[in-house]
Amino acid sequence: MMAGIKNASHVKLFSLNSNRPLAESVAKEVGIPLSDASIKQFADGEIQITINESVRGCEVYVIQSISDPVNTNIMELLIMVDALRRASANTINVIIPYYGYARQDRKARSREPITAKLIASLLETDQVDRAITLDLHAAQVQGFFDIPVDHLLAAPLLANYFYNQKLTDNIVVVAPDHAGVTRARKFAEILKAPIAIIDNRSPEEIERKTESVPKYVIGDVQDKIAILIDDIVDTGVRMAVSATALKNFGASEVYACATHGVFSRNAMDKVNEAPIKKIIVTDSIDIPEDKKGPKLVELSVASLLGQAIVRIHNNEPVDSLFVSSDNESAKI
Amino acid sequence: MMAGIKNASHVKLFSLNSNRPLAESVAKEVGIPLSDASIKQFADGEIQITINESVRGCEVYVIQSISDPVNTNIMELLIMVDALRRASANTINVIIPYYGYARQDRKARSREPITAKLIASLLETDQVDRAITLDLHAAQVQGFFDIPVDHLLAAPLLANYFYNQKLTDNIVVVAPDHAGVTRARKFAEILKAPIAIIDNRSPEEIERKTESVPKYVIGDVQDKIAILIDDIVDTGVRMAVSATALKNFGASEVYACATHGVFSRNAMDKVNEAPIKKIIVTDSIDIPEDKKGPKLVELSVASLLGQAIVRIHNNEPVDSLFVSSDNESAKI
Amino acid sequence: MMAGIKNASHVKLFSLNSNRPLAESVAKEVGIPLSDASIKQFADGEIQITINESVRGCEVYVIQSISDPVNTNIMELLIMVDALRRASANTINVIIPYYGYARQDRKARSREPITAKLIASLLETDQVDRAITLDLHAAQVQGFFDIPVDHLLAAPLLANYFYNQKLTDNIVVVAPDHAGVTRARKFAEILKAPIAIIDNRSPEEIERKTESVPKYVIGDVQDKIAILIDDIVDTGVRMAVSATALKNFGASEVYACATHGVFSRNAMDKVNEAPIKKIIVTDSIDIPEDKKGPKLVELSVASLLGQAIVRIHNNEPVDSLFVSSDNESAKI
Amino acid sequence: MMAGIKNASHVKLFSLNSNRPLAESVAKEVGIPLSDASIKQFADGEIQITINESVRGCEVYVIQSISDPVNTNIMELLIMVDALRRASANTINVIIPYYGYARQDRKARSREPITAKLIASLLETDQVDRAITLDLHAAQVQGFFDIPVDHLLAAPLLANYFYNQKLTDNIVVVAPDHAGVTRARKFAEILKAPIAIIDNRSPEEIERKTESVPKYVIGDVQDKIAILIDDIVDTGVRMAVSATALKNFGASEVYACATHGVFSRNAMDKVNEAPIKKIIVTDSIDIPEDKKGPKLVELSVASLLGQAIVRIHNNEPVDSLFVSSDNESAKI
Amino acid sequence: MMAGIKNASHVKLFSLNSNRPLAESVAKEVGIPLSDASIKQFADGEIQITINESVRGCEVYVIQSISDPVNTNIMELLIMVDALRRASANTINVIIPYYGYARQDRKARSREPITAKLIASLLETDQVDRAITLDLHAAQVQGFFDIPVDHLLAAPLLANYFYNQKLTDNIVVVAPDHAGVTRARKFAEILKAPIAIIDNRSPEEIERKTESVPKYVIGDVQDKIAILIDDIVDTGVRMAVSATALKNFGASEVYACATHGVFSRNAMDKVNEAPIKKIIVTDSIDIPEDKKGPKLVELSVASLLGQAIVRIHNNEPVDSLFVSSDNESAKI
Amino acid sequence: MMAGIKNASHVKLFSLNSNRPLAESVAKEVGIPLSDASIKQFADGEIQITINESVRGCEVYVIQSISDPVNTNIMELLIMVDALRRASANTINVIIPYYGYARQDRKARSREPITAKLIASLLETDQVDRAITLDLHAAQVQGFFDIPVDHLLAAPLLANYFYNQKLTDNIVVVAPDHAGVTRARKFAEILKAPIAIIDNRSPEEIERKTESVPKYVIGDVQDKIAILIDDIVDTGVRMAVSATALKNFGASEVYACATHGVFSRNAMDKVNEAPIKKIIVTDSIDIPEDKKGPKLVELSVASLLGQAIVRIHNNEPVDSLFVSSDNESAKI
Repeated sequence: MMAGIKNASHVKLFSLNSNRPLAESVAKEVGIPLSDASIKQFADGEIQITINESVRGCEVYVIQSISDPVNTNIMELLIMVDALRRASANTINVIIPYYGYARQDRKARSREPITAKLIASLLETDQVDRAITLDLHAAQVQGFFDIPVDHLLAAPLLANYFYNQKLTDNIVVVAPDHAGVTRARKFAEILKAPIAIIDNRSPEEIERKTESVPKYVIGDVQDKIAILIDDIVDTGVRMAVSATALKNFGASEVYACATHGVFSRNAMDKVNEAPIKKIIVTDSIDIPEDKKGPKLVELSVASLLGQAIVRIHNNEPVDSLFVSSDNESAKI
Repeated sequence: MMAGIKNASHVKLFSLNSNRPLAESVAKEVGIPLSDASIKQFADGEIQITINESVRGCEVYVIQSISDPVNTNIMELLIMVDALRRASANTINVIIPYYGYARQDRKARSREPITAKLIASLLETDQVDRAITLDLHAAQVQGFFDIPVDHLLAAPLLANYFYNQKLTDNIVVVAPDHAGVTRARKFAEILKAPIAIIDNRSPEEIERKTESVPKYVIGDVQDKIAILIDDIVDTGVRMAVSATALKNFGASEVYACATHGVFSRNAMDKVNEAPIKKIIVTDSIDIPEDKKGPKLVELSVASLLGQAIVRIHNNEPVDSLFVSSDNESAKI
Repeated sequence: MMAGIKNASHVKLFSLNSNRPLAESVAKEVGIPLSDASIKQFADGEIQITINESVRGCEVYVIQSISDPVNTNIMELLIMVDALRRASANTINVIIPYYGYARQDRKARSREPITAKLIASLLETDQVDRAITLDLHAAQVQGFFDIPVDHLLAAPLLANYFYNQKLTDNIVVVAPDHAGVTRARKFAEILKAPIAIIDNRSPEEIERKTESVPKYVIGDVQDKIAILIDDIVDTGVRMAVSATALKNFGASEVYACATHGVFSRNAMDKVNEAPIKKIIVTDSIDIPEDKKGPKLVELSVASLLGQAIVRIHNNEPVDSLFVSSDNESAKI
Repeated sequence: MMAGIKNASHVKLFSLNSNRPLAESVAKEVGIPLSDASIKQFADGEIQITINESVRGCEVYVIQSISDPVNTNIMELLIMVDALRRASANTINVIIPYYGYARQDRKARSREPITAKLIASLLETDQVDRAITLDLHAAQVQGFFDIPVDHLLAAPLLANYFYNQKLTDNIVVVAPDHAGVTRARKFAEILKAPIAIIDNRSPEEIERKTESVPKYVIGDVQDKIAILIDDIVDTGVRMAVSATALKNFGASEVYACATHGVFSRNAMDKVNEAPIKKIIVTDSIDIPEDKKGPKLVELSVASLLGQAIVRIHNNEPVDSLFVSSDNESAKI
Repeated sequence: MMAGIKNASHVKLFSLNSNRPLAESVAKEVGIPLSDASIKQFADGEIQITINESVRGCEVYVIQSISDPVNTNIMELLIMVDALRRASANTINVIIPYYGYARQDRKARSREPITAKLIASLLETDQVDRAITLDLHAAQVQGFFDIPVDHLLAAPLLANYFYNQKLTDNIVVVAPDHAGVTRARKFAEILKAPIAIIDNRSPEEIERKTESVPKYVIGDVQDKIAILIDDIVDTGVRMAVSATALKNFGASEVYACATHGVFSRNAMDKVNEAPIKKIIVTDSIDIPEDKKGPKLVELSVASLLGQAIVRIHNNEPVDSLFVSSDNESAKI
Repeated sequence: MMAGIKNASHVKLFSLNSNRPLAESVAKEVGIPLSDASIKQFADGEIQITINESVRGCEVYVIQSISDPVNTNIMELLIMVDALRRASANTINVIIPYYGYARQDRKARSREPITAKLIASLLETDQVDRAITLDLHAAQVQGFFDIPVDHLLAAPLLANYFYNQKLTDNIVVVAPDHAGVTRARKFAEILKAPIAIIDNRSPEEIERKTESVPKYVIGDVQDKIAILIDDIVDTGVRMAVSATALKNFGASEVYACATHGVFSRNAMDKVNEAPIKKIIVTDSIDIPEDKKGPKLVELSVASLLGQAIVRIHNNEPVDSLFVSSDNESAKI
């Protein structure tokens, strides 16, 4: 049982439009109601925000995932923060369960933007006091901020699923590409499993276009239950072709696992058609009912976020409850 | 004949996605080609920008109207500027023919944002060097910026239409509400006409919902050709009910005139059904073909913008050509 | 009866030199004494400030109108804030009953400053935490600030005068020029009266030079009690010539009404000579005794400011007491 | 003969109101005319600035001493810079021959401002590109700026007076108080003279109130020509009482010498009544004719400032011509 | 043959103390002499910088690696930039061949700093205009800067060594840990080789302490020439134990390869004792003679840096010559 | 007996590596333990900081002198502050008993840095909330900060030594150079003594190189106990040669006195060889045992710093206890 939030009348929790179901669950965890604001769009597409209760002197938390429609969701967040600041909120804490644009975190080629940094700069210009995030694509994104960032991790939650399902023997944790090996290695430590890596030999420039099945798997997957782990499932292609490759290399079953279920376009169809048994994601992004399928397992981060809010507000350390970014194994 | 732009090889003109036809016309006016960049959206809605030619050390101009889809268009602009800055552009000048969110320029009620200021702050955070705008909703928006703003005016262009149509006798310029009286007064000075004001008596909060025909017209419109002038036509409701009111008060004909044709939802239907003879707007916003109607007259600001770019780049004063914000009458 | 200010020992209220009588009244309203500081000028004109009591950790409120001598008053405020910040005040709230330079809020012509924005920038550089203002010349000036601005309105106070004087029948509210129509419209709503507009046909550049009587009044004033409303009475010329015009158009009596009584040069003489019955202003600016005349009615904003301070300090909403900027009619 | 300024058509030199005679002399030195701007005050004391020629893309120099009326002169400068920046000046260089408020350069007591730093911060907020100053009260004021400061010295000019007058034998350079010993030591090195120090024993807090004649002179002045050196002559009291003390200790003649002639109140009377033979100052501050007296020798810094502008603009080192702050002796 | 630098008299190239030999080679490449500055330490350890030639209006390049003594080298750089800015340099470009503290690029545990971001912030506070870097530990460090970063890559240079040595057949590129797989994958693409990964199973917290030989190698190295690739060789431990593991798994020969040769403590001894045939690094860090050993191969980045300076200064694209960060394979 | 610190559980006091003995004494004074952090250097010289207890929401005080190794100590401080900020400390107060680089507080010659300002800027960039310092080399350094600076003075502590030793009769306070006259004058006021000044005639550029004995002493020292006072003893040369000069001019005994004992190189040998009876310094800098000698008297500022922390934290004025910078005489 979670200890209550102190001085609750000075805490306000607002939901914007990207993920109201999660915000409502978080509010229940925290034990306070969602505060009242109307966030709409005018006929011309401009966002109209009216905050319907006083926030003067309050500690305000705003929940918003930067998921599709990503640009509208960012602007909603920026405009809401502007309104809160001008309305004399004491502190403004933004909870961003899914930090969109995080994959644009470096100049991969000449004359590209670093949009993940731009988002951080825009939030800081708007005078946000704190960001609370979940499984950033690269941990370095924390450094794009100068304000405190509480970076929460979903790995224990995801791992718990496999423990609960007794899926702990004869398993191998698989990174779907080279960039994900560190993430897989850590997840493997939690599950006490070996790892393998999908190696897509051809030097393609942008992975998203890569629809062919990889020809190489580094490490042993023969007759094992393979657990593909990634931070984001976007188009579903990488998970699908990786699963096929794993089956080609003799894996007995393939589970796919990711923190953020973007599921753009017909991603769930791809998953359904691929030799994937279950795909496990969190509710960091609100998945519309018609996109959900029989293979989808959705785990809620509401408790994780709610407890983080309580501890942050009560000035208690966050890491005693949730593991921090790099060295989680020792703490489970 | 416009004098050419100096040192043209160091000038780059980019168009983003909001209004390519206008950008192409501006490029022709300036006498340089549009530079090459691909601005797309990934499957998950995130904007992807790649600039395909070197901008190192160049004076860059980017054209983007903040029109519907307004949030995507803002983010496109911010991301493009981020890319240009990191790519070592020498100066970044943004041309915003339509500055969206400009009507949110003050706290009309408690706990509202001032989004027009937010947009300015975001652009300055992104290190834009100059903004070139057209008929801002309120001239005070210039003061939201600390960088130089070249504020161009469409009034002479719009007035010219009436001169060309010989519509200069027995006319009255009409402000569709109280906030627009100053604008109407100035337009009347250019046309050497008297003014009138539509007075919608009831104390409604937000004009956009006001669909009833106003009961009062202050000033004499009887048997006159009424020219309604506004900066923005959005839903078309205000223009439509104002025209009806003017007819009720005896106006012989009604023309509607605005710089920016937002035409959200079924605005053009409303215009078509109303007793409006012609509606004259500029191409600051790209109007899709299926929204255009027989009453629409579209005047191009390409020449105005193109000449502004040339003069700005050549370090020539801009006000000798185009009139500045408040005192245009004396200069026509 | 106003509820008391909480934690009063941590609140400090300072008066600078522009308007001590108002500051003293405000202090009485708040229920705390004015704090002790000596603010003088050296022989060479430089301002010398010494704060004579500790402000360490305190919530500090400083009252200063930016009235004549306007530049000295601004510098006094900036220097005081510098001293307070270095003396470890916890928050610095500046109360600016009259925000000078507010009329320089846009570039009316090429190569003009936007001094109203400059003032805001200087205060923010000085790390002011909040501004409390009264009837800004343009509501957009709020957006010149990124810190919270509590914008109070004097309209209810001014309207109350007419209610108390039973001046509510057969009245017409008159805007002395086009720019003031919105203000007049709102004031008319409070008084439930129709409006009229003075139309000074000739295209003069700067109103202050305009000493001739306007030839046009739009709207019906015949045999009515006309109430001229403006935000500022400066040289008095506009009020004087407007009153004459109203009389010429048949008004039975003319009252002039403004929030801020600048009364520069011989303004009060002009008022006294004009067919104005009473001129009603607030004490936002300290009017020297020798400038006051028999027609002057001065209403105090001390209670309004005092209550604002208490509510702001107690983290209570300000808008439940005082009306906010645009939609006051609904709330009276 | 000074080399000409390069690319003169892109250079603009403006004078504000504090010291037009000096600005005109500087313009002649530089070989360009003063640019055209009108800088006035409205009836209510607000400053009105209109720049009457294009500055787009120009290198702009603005001359303004922060002398009495000090607050108006600062605001004039800040407002002018705002106008220049918005008018697209390429760089804005402010020349401040007399930097007022420089004596408020530290917290001498608790809860005092550091106004000299505030002025620097205000100028940097306004986006000034460079400051050119003369004999700052403390050299550390340079560090209040992050922009480049070209700090010029009047000592060679002042010393030259004594060389020209053949006043080089049997002289002693005297610091009028302890804080000025370093300045006196340097001036003595230029003149190859010994030094002495006035020691006002009593622990008075603020020197300006000190009107009694000091009882101690440290060092030998008997039968010598004493040259009192200070950076500023303000009320004249310190110079007057120091001269008397020197006479009391046997000095044969006393000359007083300072870079900046503030001469507030009846300073010149004090000088005239004191046993001072001549008082030598520069024209960094414009001294009104009626304040000048028979003892006043005024040396012009126009050539120094003019040459500095030319060298700065031509990207030539400034220190080859003028000596820099601390080690001038070696260079004379 | 490289084209010359334009307008050479306006370009200044300074070397600080970390790596003078490289700076001298770069100067030769660029075709200009190193500019004259004395950078020393006082007896108390404080750095003293005097720039001995004018930099007014110049484009300045400063070369400094943030290598041991890392804190002194950072401060040298920051102080030099302060001096250059105050001396009116037009632009200040810092060339940081080795960006120290880059491994502290995220909060690996609670309450850790992100020092790599701090360094970037310090440089930006100091108003550096551009950073030129080489093989940053994480590409995301580019996003720690808002100024342009030209990120050069040593991979082609290193790969060239193996081409020149005809070491292209039967090779395998090996990542010494999970975090380095992406780097290895890219290097393998240049060499057209397969990859393998060292897997040190035990969940140790900090790799540097890990002195035991890893028990797992993922991928096939049997009878192959293994090329270990990393960005930094620090203590040499990881390279040494990795080489031993590779030998244990049957590799015929082991080459170690890294961009930055930190070689702290007895690193070279460790390398010499390990089954490493050659260790190839660049001269981004100056390696003292007594630390060099028979196995060391040092490749110079002087040409790469020199050409970068020339192209940047001449406003030519940098990526046509050198490959950019992520997709180099396509360009070789 | 000092009143206790309020709300002690929210106060954290950290020591970095420059002066742990002082930090431990301060902690005892404040009555709280030093908080737990490990501050080490990796093999490559990079600083590694881990804070071992939660600081979330705490008021944090960090003690660090910027003494030799000065650059490492600055970086330690900057990195610690970065870690504290990211760890959600509520306020970060840095206590800098010795502010290194303070002597580089102005451009003494062209193209020099102003490093004392740079340090202040770096700390402010890092978002330090307050600096607590002791006897800054120049009081103007306070103005290099915009955050509050609590500037403590050691003069009463040093004076107390002479009172306790009954060294109050027949004494003269001596400034070792011109720049120190103001400091000597104030110290003399506390001790009610006359002053004298060492005058080193030759125009040397940098005093530190000056090893010859000065030939002039201004003021009377014959048969008196001379107390040399300075803020810093660095190489000891100035104190040594000044003492010799004083003896040459007939002083009976010489005491040397300074707030900060830098004692670089063989400074203590110089002191021991010179005709100095005792050298009195504070423990603002940690002096290694092997540098101490028989003449050294070390007075602790722990109580001064401890009381300052308590008063600052309890929001009590600091100046009632300790004297402020300029006018201490009146308060003793």
